[in-house]
Amino acid sequence: MKFIRQALPTLMMAAALLASTAAHAQFKNAEHAAKYRQGAFTVMAVHFGNIGAMVNGKKDFDAKQAEVDANAVKALSALPWAGFGPETEYLETKALPEIWLEKEKFLAAATKLQTATSNLAAVAKTGDAAKLKVAFGQTAKSCKACHDAYKE
Amino acid sequence: MKFIRQALPTLMMAAALLASTAAHAQFKNAEHAAKYRQGAFTVMAVHFGNIGAMVNGKKDFDAKQAEVDANAVKALSALPWAGFGPETEYLETKALPEIWLEKEKFLAAATKLQTATSNLAAVAKTGDAAKLKVAFGQTAKSCKACHDAYKE
Repeated sequence: MKFIRQALPTLMMAAALLASTAAHAQFKNAEHAAKYRQGAFTVMAVHFGNIGAMVNGKKDFDAKQAEVDANAVKALSALPWAGFGPETEYLETKALPEIWLEKEKFLAAATKLQTATSNLAAVAKTGDAAKLKVAFGQTAKSCKACHDAYKE
Repeated sequence: MKFIRQALPTLMMAAALLASTAAHAQFKNAEHAAKYRQGAFTVMAVHFGNIGAMVNGKKDFDAKQAEVDANAVKALSALPWAGFGPETEYLETKALPEIWLEKEKFLAAATKLQTATSNLAAVAKTGDAAKLKVAFGQTAKSCKACHDAYKE
């Protein structure tokens, strides 16, 4: 990855386009931005995994807890994108250069995830385990599409 | 820290008391639990820092953004505690053994933080920068009290 990243000066311009997204966040430096986004993904994955364990029968279904988890997933799904700001594309992470080269596509995928997680939280509120399983599957698809395209 | 941790077998029992808090979360192992809680703290700190920059004049006040940040802080302040579960006290982290030895006091401090962040979010919603500065200060005090007592 290092070679590709250093060999593509266009990444610098592409990264500048992502700057507006991250303009507000108070990151100390690129490493801090990456740590932020990785933290958000880690926490989101734990709560999403909790729901998965319930809807896939690895854990008893607990409607109240599923709602807590889904709300956490929804809240967290709005956050990591600011951490893909300028200069973070030069760090050695699992993030692929396509994130900065296809900025609009990447952010569209992020928006799609947020639509899925909003639905997940709404369905969790109903306490319907069968419907939650469907919403979980839809959200998982959204996660996977982005990982396939943008994560090493 | 390593010596103290290994020298205190009572920690094991104390940790078991924290197990119930973490019972639901799907952590792969102790390291994963620590990564989860550290991720939650990192993300929370960024959003709290955003508010700090605004109320302390380092950044223009943006009521809408402050509300987004305060909501993120509120949501995140409920999460990290599950990551202090059993066996995580043996990891080399900045978490002090007192967390597991004074479990109830620690969880009371966590609850106090959540009260402060709920107020922070409520005040942010009003768009009043002066009041937000006060709520920010109260929340910062709660952060600091816990760090002083439980963070190396």
